[in-house]
Amino acid sequence: MTTLIRNAWLLPCTPDMAVIEGGHVLVEDGIIASAGPGEGPPRPGAELIDAGGDIVMPGMVNAHAHLPMTLFRGLGEDVDDRLFRYVLPMERRFVSPDMVRIGTALGAWESIRAGVTTVADMYYFETEVGHVLDEAGLRGVVGQTIADFDPPDHDSIDAGFALTEKLADTFAGHDRITASIAPHAPYSTDIPVMARVARWAEDHPDAPVQIHLAEMRSEMDWAERTHGCRPVETVDRAGLLRDGLIAAHCLYLDDAEIARMAAAGVRVAHNARSNAKAGRGIAPVDKMRAAGIPVGIATDGPMSGNTLDLFAQFGPVSMFAKLLGGSRKPMPAAEVVRMATAEGARVLGLDDRIGTLTPGMAADLIRISLDAPRLQPVYDPYATLVFAAQPEDVTAVMVAGRWLMRDRQVLSLERAKVLRDAGQIATQFRAEMARIDGDET
Amino acid sequence: MTTLIRNAWLLPCTPDMAVIEGGHVLVEDGIIASAGPGEGPPRPGAELIDAGGDIVMPGMVNAHAHLPMTLFRGLGEDVDDRLFRYVLPMERRFVSPDMVRIGTALGAWESIRAGVTTVADMYYFETEVGHVLDEAGLRGVVGQTIADFDPPDHDSIDAGFALTEKLADTFAGHDRITASIAPHAPYSTDIPVMARVARWAEDHPDAPVQIHLAEMRSEMDWAERTHGCRPVETVDRAGLLRDGLIAAHCLYLDDAEIARMAAAGVRVAHNARSNAKAGRGIAPVDKMRAAGIPVGIATDGPMSGNTLDLFAQFGPVSMFAKLLGGSRKPMPAAEVVRMATAEGARVLGLDDRIGTLTPGMAADLIRISLDAPRLQPVYDPYATLVFAAQPEDVTAVMVAGRWLMRDRQVLSLERAKVLRDAGQIATQFRAEMARIDGDET
Repeated sequence: MTTLIRNAWLLPCTPDMAVIEGGHVLVEDGIIASAGPGEGPPRPGAELIDAGGDIVMPGMVNAHAHLPMTLFRGLGEDVDDRLFRYVLPMERRFVSPDMVRIGTALGAWESIRAGVTTVADMYYFETEVGHVLDEAGLRGVVGQTIADFDPPDHDSIDAGFALTEKLADTFAGHDRITASIAPHAPYSTDIPVMARVARWAEDHPDAPVQIHLAEMRSEMDWAERTHGCRPVETVDRAGLLRDGLIAAHCLYLDDAEIARMAAAGVRVAHNARSNAKAGRGIAPVDKMRAAGIPVGIATDGPMSGNTLDLFAQFGPVSMFAKLLGGSRKPMPAAEVVRMATAEGARVLGLDDRIGTLTPGMAADLIRISLDAPRLQPVYDPYATLVFAAQPEDVTAVMVAGRWLMRDRQVLSLERAKVLRDAGQIATQFRAEMARIDGDET
Repeated sequence: MTTLIRNAWLLPCTPDMAVIEGGHVLVEDGIIASAGPGEGPPRPGAELIDAGGDIVMPGMVNAHAHLPMTLFRGLGEDVDDRLFRYVLPMERRFVSPDMVRIGTALGAWESIRAGVTTVADMYYFETEVGHVLDEAGLRGVVGQTIADFDPPDHDSIDAGFALTEKLADTFAGHDRITASIAPHAPYSTDIPVMARVARWAEDHPDAPVQIHLAEMRSEMDWAERTHGCRPVETVDRAGLLRDGLIAAHCLYLDDAEIARMAAAGVRVAHNARSNAKAGRGIAPVDKMRAAGIPVGIATDGPMSGNTLDLFAQFGPVSMFAKLLGGSRKPMPAAEVVRMATAEGARVLGLDDRIGTLTPGMAADLIRISLDAPRLQPVYDPYATLVFAAQPEDVTAVMVAGRWLMRDRQVLSLERAKVLRDAGQIATQFRAEMARIDGDET
């Protein structure tokens, strides 16, 4: 199948972050055959699309999420102890392969609607997450969580590794779904488990490792109390501070740790909104990037950040850097878009396949309308994307040459079923919250 | 005309921030006759609307904006000296009654689309702003700017007061448009002009006073250099730190100044996104509110904050308070919605007419659909509004009993004309930017 898009305001997200008016993209067999100014090479019989001056850019990369947690969106909002009061007991009771599939489908719908084409996920029953993302046509890095707190899908570390092995087998050689291993966090795996993960990763060089790192004060306290050091040091002692490690959050880093992570080839997923909503702080993104650490933009789970669209992250990513820097200059809009595309792809180790619109890359692309009066006038498309655009403005989404959304209609998932299934789980959750609140009074 | 809305998820924004499932609102002659649980009193012949479980709440109040600056949206984004490089010279050259009308119409369209029913504005040729808001059916507090830097519409302070007098005459006794006087900032009016404003305000007790205050480091330096004190003190020396003063920004306040402003009856417009985007800092909102200062949510001009919808402010307002407080607890979602409605109305001195859905208040209300998958599930409507909802979710807007939008269609402005007029101005702006950039190279 061949598709030729013309008359696009093309943002290929190449290193120069060029803006090409009146550009084209030619897609052949799921791969970008040509992208640049002008009408492109003639291809008789190709599906021809006039973008009418709309933005066409790479699909966005969500560098860290817990998709099934869409079902917890807004639950216990503002309740300071909600993790122990609601979330952990409810996860233990309700998380099942079915619940994971239903939550992932809701998250996949939202991701497609918002122009996110690749999601790095970590949760439980992660093979199910992979299956649903695959069916939805999305690209995913799916990380099986391993933790020592008796999580819903494994009662021992051995069982956690067995799930991971099954996940890796299931998606071996898959074009869009990449299996990943996800030790939950230093405090919930400790050094011996992280060391075992490092050995597993040596044997599975195609599987990225994802971890929560330097996210909480209590994590700093744990590292100091248990090992007399900081969290990054515990990861290093385990041999896990290695090329390709995807570290989520990274709020509490000193300059020496940043240099050490950069030298080791670690990549970071920046969860601006989630971290701020928890009152935890602002990750030193400019410092990390200046040191050479690739940093992607991430939503975290919808319990923490409430949405899975990167537009809602763009403002915070830019504003927080400007607040830390004390001027309007840090983190220009084009850099935010770079982090959401090419740099995000690099964080996930997928930059040989996605992140830019250049020949040979997979055809993961989105089309964004600038028609809404709230976007007008447009002097700089990056400023418009970062500070004014919203998921509603995304009109079409293609992954690996397949249209997942056209004319704002998601094609690869059934909206009514997604909502009905999610509604049934939410009803159970509401009853359980009432029971928990009732027990207490 | 009588309208009865039933089956609403009613958020009346009364002091208890109650949530009423299956509620009703009865509107008679532009006034709320009844609002609460159940079906409401029977009114044969009334227009009957089944809200289908949608949220119905007061129209939102934007406590500080420069509507005509929609035309500058995103212009020179990230250029650190853009104010002196582009904005001030371009304002001097292009700001005219026509430009003000065109920019205000674009801003009014965006406001209605996003469920904002009242805007406090300050700009030039403000009588034109008032006319356009009136025609659009919105409610407005329209402040004529007075400044000593030779602004586009007055070459002397006397001329500025003449414009203000005309504005006050034009809208005397108007139901929805309230004339206001807007000394630009302490550094651009100095104490004698602020003192004259204070006397003018004494003679015009219905006209609120709006000012930019404690917004910039350079303002602090000016006050120290010129008067050996801080900006709040200069306002007080002028006799302008008075009941009903609407102070925008208020980033740099110490505890004593907060107490002084609270005692004087000053109100504050919080421009979270605009202040952060400029790298200036975070206003101490929790401290101000704890001291009894009413604080409203504001977008600032779209050159600073890029949009005129309060949804884009909700995340920052909440996140910034949580960051300052260091936990998830400060600024719960319901408080954010209170600031956007009842408290915003109090900031503008309109709380006898708008801000809550209670009998006797003007029928300024909006309807919000929860259908979008990205909003589901909904456990707490306030969390949904603050952390996930977007302008697109607003489906209907009523001001003083008149529908300004239904089924997501703005009824009181002509979309094509609004966009065409704005596009023509933007073309002139682009040419001027090219000229400025060309002159330099």
